[in-house]
Amino acid sequence: MKRNVYLQTQAIPVAVALVRQALDRDTLVQRETVPSHQALGRVLCAPVHARYSAPTTHSAAMDGYALRAADSFAAREGQPVILEEGTSCFAVNTGHPLPENCDAVVMIEHVQTLGDGRISIEAPAFPWQHVRRIGEDIVATELLFPRNRVLSAYDIGALLSGGIWEAPVWESLRLRIIPTGNEVLDFTAKPDPGRGQVVESNSQVLFALASQLGCAVSRVPPVPDDPVALRAALNKSLDEGMHITVFCAGSSAGDKDFTRAVIESEGKVLVHGIAAMPGKPTIAGICRGRLVFGAPGYPVSSVVAFEEVMAPIIRWLTRREEIHRPELAMELTRKVPSRLGMEEFVRLAVGRVGQKLVATPLGRGAGNITTLTRAQAVMRIPPESEGVAEGAAVQGALLCAPEELDSILVCVGSHDNVLDLLADELMGLDTPFRFVSTHVGSMGGITAIRNSSCHLGGMHLFDADTGDFNFPDLAKFLPEMEVAVVNLAIRHQGLIVQKGNPLGIQGVKDLGRKDVRFINRQRGAGTRILLDWHLKEAGMKPADVAGYDKEESTHMAVAVNVLTGAAQCGMGIFAAAHALDLSFVPLARERYDLVIPRKFLDDPRIEALLALVQSREFQARIEALGGYETRLTGRHMSPGMALGL
Amino acid sequence: MKRNVYLQTQAIPVAVALVRQALDRDTLVQRETVPSHQALGRVLCAPVHARYSAPTTHSAAMDGYALRAADSFAAREGQPVILEEGTSCFAVNTGHPLPENCDAVVMIEHVQTLGDGRISIEAPAFPWQHVRRIGEDIVATELLFPRNRVLSAYDIGALLSGGIWEAPVWESLRLRIIPTGNEVLDFTAKPDPGRGQVVESNSQVLFALASQLGCAVSRVPPVPDDPVALRAALNKSLDEGMHITVFCAGSSAGDKDFTRAVIESEGKVLVHGIAAMPGKPTIAGICRGRLVFGAPGYPVSSVVAFEEVMAPIIRWLTRREEIHRPELAMELTRKVPSRLGMEEFVRLAVGRVGQKLVATPLGRGAGNITTLTRAQAVMRIPPESEGVAEGAAVQGALLCAPEELDSILVCVGSHDNVLDLLADELMGLDTPFRFVSTHVGSMGGITAIRNSSCHLGGMHLFDADTGDFNFPDLAKFLPEMEVAVVNLAIRHQGLIVQKGNPLGIQGVKDLGRKDVRFINRQRGAGTRILLDWHLKEAGMKPADVAGYDKEESTHMAVAVNVLTGAAQCGMGIFAAAHALDLSFVPLARERYDLVIPRKFLDDPRIEALLALVQSREFQARIEALGGYETRLTGRHMSPGMALGL
Repeated sequence: MKRNVYLQTQAIPVAVALVRQALDRDTLVQRETVPSHQALGRVLCAPVHARYSAPTTHSAAMDGYALRAADSFAAREGQPVILEEGTSCFAVNTGHPLPENCDAVVMIEHVQTLGDGRISIEAPAFPWQHVRRIGEDIVATELLFPRNRVLSAYDIGALLSGGIWEAPVWESLRLRIIPTGNEVLDFTAKPDPGRGQVVESNSQVLFALASQLGCAVSRVPPVPDDPVALRAALNKSLDEGMHITVFCAGSSAGDKDFTRAVIESEGKVLVHGIAAMPGKPTIAGICRGRLVFGAPGYPVSSVVAFEEVMAPIIRWLTRREEIHRPELAMELTRKVPSRLGMEEFVRLAVGRVGQKLVATPLGRGAGNITTLTRAQAVMRIPPESEGVAEGAAVQGALLCAPEELDSILVCVGSHDNVLDLLADELMGLDTPFRFVSTHVGSMGGITAIRNSSCHLGGMHLFDADTGDFNFPDLAKFLPEMEVAVVNLAIRHQGLIVQKGNPLGIQGVKDLGRKDVRFINRQRGAGTRILLDWHLKEAGMKPADVAGYDKEESTHMAVAVNVLTGAAQCGMGIFAAAHALDLSFVPLARERYDLVIPRKFLDDPRIEALLALVQSREFQARIEALGGYETRLTGRHMSPGMALGL
Repeated sequence: MKRNVYLQTQAIPVAVALVRQALDRDTLVQRETVPSHQALGRVLCAPVHARYSAPTTHSAAMDGYALRAADSFAAREGQPVILEEGTSCFAVNTGHPLPENCDAVVMIEHVQTLGDGRISIEAPAFPWQHVRRIGEDIVATELLFPRNRVLSAYDIGALLSGGIWEAPVWESLRLRIIPTGNEVLDFTAKPDPGRGQVVESNSQVLFALASQLGCAVSRVPPVPDDPVALRAALNKSLDEGMHITVFCAGSSAGDKDFTRAVIESEGKVLVHGIAAMPGKPTIAGICRGRLVFGAPGYPVSSVVAFEEVMAPIIRWLTRREEIHRPELAMELTRKVPSRLGMEEFVRLAVGRVGQKLVATPLGRGAGNITTLTRAQAVMRIPPESEGVAEGAAVQGALLCAPEELDSILVCVGSHDNVLDLLADELMGLDTPFRFVSTHVGSMGGITAIRNSSCHLGGMHLFDADTGDFNFPDLAKFLPEMEVAVVNLAIRHQGLIVQKGNPLGIQGVKDLGRKDVRFINRQRGAGTRILLDWHLKEAGMKPADVAGYDKEESTHMAVAVNVLTGAAQCGMGIFAAAHALDLSFVPLARERYDLVIPRKFLDDPRIEALLALVQSREFQARIEALGGYETRLTGRHMSPGMALGL
């Protein structure tokens, strides 16, 4: 394989500085004029001075009568001054120009009309009373806005009031996005991805991000990994006057990564590789005085490349100041190791639990777009750090409005599909709540409750000795904590097998067969504990089960393994099998409970959640999933109840 | 005059609640589907579940070779394991599906290719190493997003990755804006306003604000104050399916205010009058199940009506949560009286001076759009308060990014046109600064410096006893403070008269003439002090000058008075006369200085400002204005220098 070699990897600020130095901003970004009323969000390229004053003349600021203040000075209660309409006073409405020689307005409410064209007032008016004076708001020729002002909605009003119909602005950056790759499918064709194919979506994420920065973005269909085609796409982009061309994927050093070579064939590479994770394979180059970027192929890497390298340059080119996300202190629920010499960006699921913000690091797979959609904050670990310890106080830069954090219910524990229903219904409430659920197994839920890093946990811990659920483990691991245990549902656990059960799997005994590859759940998962109990009952050992050591952390992931043939069998809930149209061999019923520290029971979010769980409508939705019973749903459980009431 | 009577004035939250109660949200706002890649910022009307998993199959996470981890367990440094391509190992690039039976990838960097289709590795691979597992990111059928999710750029990527080509969303609110008024001119016609005419701009401010909230906004040309025409416009809007119709102006109780009657002719008025200043004459009604608003005619009132009443309802209708502006503590530089029973919204010019944020209340004229464009924050004074004292700590809700406050240089004092040049040039620097200049006269500048509520003051205080500028007053009023005095320019003061000086005004003596109406500057203004000195020299008293009691607070405002004939003569600087093409009778030269507390001299913003003032380019721009001399510009002054060096 022929492989490229990275140029020297650059720290992000260095990379940005190298690009800025290489650009001639004043030549690259031209001036243009746009109608003022369409200039929202545009940036002035020159100072703007008012052409008209506002108001253009002294005007009535109230409905009433205009007069000379001096004529009214004698007026007192019981000693009215009488004025004659058309001579010494004039009816005016708000905004009317003040008649010649008048210098005050008396409000209509304070006037008695005598019916013969005369009015009577019983209080003196002071000069300029209720008069908007000429130029009070805007004086002709004065500076309305300096250059480089980002025009707001209000500014548009001031421009029009000042008689500025056209605003001189920096042109919008034309940005072309070129998705690349032989294996990528164009989403515009609504494709069905086959094995090894992926639906290209990064281009549209960058499209949206660049649009939000005010760029005029265009995207072309994916270009295959072919230097000739890629070079043609680049030249077309340059010919069409794009300020910035972004290649999505192909920026690394593999044998199909041509972005660097393509830039070098038309210009110069300035940066290849940034000292950041994710985001390392970022390229910045310059062709015909215009910018060309290579964005990494993984979605999170490509977002880091855009937000940390491209966005600051776009802002600088368009004279928009850099805006930093507000940072808040939060407590990390899990340790995060980090590589020396690399700046790491770790996205965090954040919620306010009690008085503190708790932040759970989201998986750092650069390929996982859901780490972007699930994050409320992002933390940077500087290059000189080897990581951050569990429980450490960190600064998280917010990706959402601060008050959104207060609408989040943090749930940690075992996974169940009913949690998705909950998440959806909670967002449908009059006061919506976000349900942020982290799946680390039932035991992980107990740990999170003990550490006060969640509002509630979902768990289904079967105790073989007592036949009860959850209470024995809660007594053992959370002895000091007062918790409420509310049933979410009784669910059917069993073996998820291929559709029609072609291998005829009937029970755990069959897991010992050579032709059956199993997919397991992770350690601490209630489902795994249940499996282990069934194996023991059947006199089997883990080593007897092929695939026992292959783990997934949700029921759905297990089912997907079976669906795609990666495994022939896995243990999980009926709902997961049903959702993917697989077959199901029932093994047991179990209780899935929500465990809630009592101190949170009067939290309005928990109250809303419990009211929802107790509603018949919600229970009907649970039952519609199949494999669930709701006769305990919403009820407070006590020790020894097992599945009875 | 026939006048309407307000219904009961409602507190803002009550007004919003009344409207919400009267609406059937589920009927009013329908569901629709839009292509996912065009759904940025839209709100899901239903939960969305993934159709595809991502990845769709186990895939290589690195460029290299796929293999069975177990085959590599024996590999050690110096004890390589040899694998055969196509049999026990397979070349893969990032993203490639993992070949059958493989469960790990070894990075290309850690492989030695032996050239005969075999490779050698010297370290064991652990299972699932560098493998992205099926569904690691997204599992088919799982909940991608709950209903009412506002779709971000990232979310678009997740939708496409999950095979969701069309997103179910709430329709965008169709909002029609109908400007009204006999006296208003349509900006689209690029009009030249005559006496009593105003360019209508509120409609476009509301247009921009509603667009920012995601509404599909349309605007029609202004409709005259005619109930028949207004009613026709309303019916057209309703017929065209608008969810919301907004009449701009005509919402008060005057005899030309028809909004209420028009709504009542087609439906019902729910609210007429809110207990807020500005914003009181706000109307909300309902016609055919759809919303109709009457926005006040004054720009600030109309913005308050939109932001405080309409926006919360729009957000509620489109299931967007309310977002509150971040609030910061700031110190008020001037007292603000307030009316009991009214909630007052006071806009503030804010800057960080030393350690504190100082907030100067902007004029509260509801007609002044510049109070909107100049504000960095807005303060609410609750109905039960009679106002806020000077120096009080208040909470200001930010209208800009918090860090923008750190880029603001606060200047308080006398007005000069060169300050506009400064403001423009400072925004053109590599690190731009905002120059926020409040004009309260030279003495006001001294007060602000004493109160530490500005970074610098502009002043031109002539001292008759010594013939010097500024230092005598600084010694008197700021004895304890160390300040630097840097000249901005020498400027020509004189009488601004009508073009060609038709009244033949030659000097202050002529101000005593019966046919000359004067327009004065406010108390404390250096220009007024200079005038008083000239009057005294001429043996005249204020009472001898017609119009001495009529005040404006800037040179330009004085000039506008002369331009429009509101006065025949005013005192001011040459630049103001020149800008409006008026004639000028020179009286004196004076020094306009910047006074800067020494502690701020090493503030990078002040350093940048001084460097700018000392540059020849900037001085050339000053001289191009006319009426200025720059031989002292940028130099540090000392007592007794007067106009010499």
